[in-house]
Amino acid sequence: MNWWLDACKTPSEEARQQAEARQLQLTKPTGSLSELERTAVQLAALQNQAKPEVTLPWIAIFAGDHGVMEENISAYPQEVTRQMLQNIASGGACISVIAKEYHAQLQVIDCGSVGEAYEYAGVERHCIIPGTANFAKQLAMTEAQCIDAVNLGRQSAEKALAQGASVYIAGEMGIGNTCSASAVACFLLNEPAEQLTGVGTGIRAEQLAHKKQVIDQALALHKDYVGTDAFKALCAVGGLEIAAMAGTYIRCAQIGLPIVVDGFISTVSALVAVRLNPAVRDWMLFGHQSAEYGHRRLLDELKAEPLLKLNLRLGEGSGAGASLGVIKLACSLHNNMATFAEAAVTGEKV
Amino acid sequence: MNWWLDACKTPSEEARQQAEARQLQLTKPTGSLSELERTAVQLAALQNQAKPEVTLPWIAIFAGDHGVMEENISAYPQEVTRQMLQNIASGGACISVIAKEYHAQLQVIDCGSVGEAYEYAGVERHCIIPGTANFAKQLAMTEAQCIDAVNLGRQSAEKALAQGASVYIAGEMGIGNTCSASAVACFLLNEPAEQLTGVGTGIRAEQLAHKKQVIDQALALHKDYVGTDAFKALCAVGGLEIAAMAGTYIRCAQIGLPIVVDGFISTVSALVAVRLNPAVRDWMLFGHQSAEYGHRRLLDELKAEPLLKLNLRLGEGSGAGASLGVIKLACSLHNNMATFAEAAVTGEKV
Repeated sequence: MNWWLDACKTPSEEARQQAEARQLQLTKPTGSLSELERTAVQLAALQNQAKPEVTLPWIAIFAGDHGVMEENISAYPQEVTRQMLQNIASGGACISVIAKEYHAQLQVIDCGSVGEAYEYAGVERHCIIPGTANFAKQLAMTEAQCIDAVNLGRQSAEKALAQGASVYIAGEMGIGNTCSASAVACFLLNEPAEQLTGVGTGIRAEQLAHKKQVIDQALALHKDYVGTDAFKALCAVGGLEIAAMAGTYIRCAQIGLPIVVDGFISTVSALVAVRLNPAVRDWMLFGHQSAEYGHRRLLDELKAEPLLKLNLRLGEGSGAGASLGVIKLACSLHNNMATFAEAAVTGEKV
Repeated sequence: MNWWLDACKTPSEEARQQAEARQLQLTKPTGSLSELERTAVQLAALQNQAKPEVTLPWIAIFAGDHGVMEENISAYPQEVTRQMLQNIASGGACISVIAKEYHAQLQVIDCGSVGEAYEYAGVERHCIIPGTANFAKQLAMTEAQCIDAVNLGRQSAEKALAQGASVYIAGEMGIGNTCSASAVACFLLNEPAEQLTGVGTGIRAEQLAHKKQVIDQALALHKDYVGTDAFKALCAVGGLEIAAMAGTYIRCAQIGLPIVVDGFISTVSALVAVRLNPAVRDWMLFGHQSAEYGHRRLLDELKAEPLLKLNLRLGEGSGAGASLGVIKLACSLHNNMATFAEAAVTGEKV
């Protein structure tokens, strides 16, 4: 019944070996391009071509509001979700500038923000619910609502592939969503809030203590319902955008579209996706290690080493977006450097 | 008498403050772009404009051969220096691909390689000496030869500025030059070889032990001559390309051209430059933390935090070159993101 349990594509072992063989012939000391080699080889396997490429990177931004904002857990007011969504669509936000820099297609999807119906150029407005319920008091979403959100993600991945995307980035916007993401992570890793909760956009120490308290209480409230079920963790304490991103990752892996995972919230979605369907992990590259406390713990769980460590903590897919430059460079080097034979350069002494 | 003692330009405090003020108005949580903000603000101060930019990045590759190759301290034979120099000029090397990717001007300068006179399109051939002397037995260079090399660097910086460069990268090619760079670093930091010697292009454990022994013996041989004099350290155990890069850095700081420092060898040159003229440090950005053992120690000495940590160990200015993408992005974000007022986005709660 649940499409997300369907099999993922298998990366090409043949393309991986061809790419590895090519790296050994390029005019450089063996292994000296390290992470750039690793990136090119992984992408070769995922794209099933010995010479990988980043044509039409796709960046989908999912937005949602959070009922838990009632508990005063953020430095920004809730109307900023919708304002920033429009700023993203208008070209003024960080991810808008990044998308332009790397010639990426930017898709902006409102999964359910608080406020009246609206139309805004460049924003695909859905309203599964106008913000989740306050998970400090009840389930954030019903299972049906959560499935709707996951399906929005699925549609985005399919659209990206249909339009010729070669890598896929999911990003998010939702005031209060680090609180929700931390709570989901706590369920998945069976840890208390202390281990996985950070300052998000920049709350002060006393507000951070309060945020952790809110999460710990929610964990106690929902633990019988959730058990160890990643999907139920999403329903209990997740967000529409977090569920949607999990949906994109699973569908990307099923249809063969390489993923670049972003920061803390995106990595929570990635972990949900991998828990629901473990083979999804093969399709993930990791763009950036965030400054948000807890991100490293999540990356360890996924055995992931991000390309960039710029200490960003902005969301919107910006860390993964920034890594597109490095991924493009990795492909250029892999594809365009001369081999020892081509350049008549002597190799290593035996 | 020595031009390198002349005053450096002073970065613009006014432009720095304007850039910092702009960062606070952009539609993102305060400080959330971290290293990207720091980069844009520093570049604004150096370029004396509130909106910094990377137009015509300049990459100069300096090559030289090393007499210490007689001691069997490298995994590659000496003829590779010249072969790779020609590969760089022909577009097949790592730095050639990077230069093309970021629309950089690539200048290739042979300061003194072993072999007969030659002409090769795109290589500016000088021959101060056809490789340094073997520093295990005598001074690598006379003071006059070393000054000639430093002056080659000076000329490159001046040419870059005259042609409109906005940032300057020096890179190197020279089989055996990590051995020379480690020896210079040992003199500057007053440490034994053990602390600052790595595998370079990839020698095996027993060869590494031998390389350290060669360096320690050279330190003992030259210590009375060198004392604590950075210039004499260059003469005793340095290389033509290492001296030339130090010259570029000092001249860049004097004429107001921002520098992006590369990896281990480049950072040794940077430290020489800063020892000779401390204000040069203000003009340096750091592109990449190399995998070469000892680089972190040098970066600490210069209080430097590189933008990238991709574990590269290739030389040729490739780490700094790779960071151009991040530096360009930092500028794009700084210049093109909307302000809270422009986008009508509500700021942080007070």
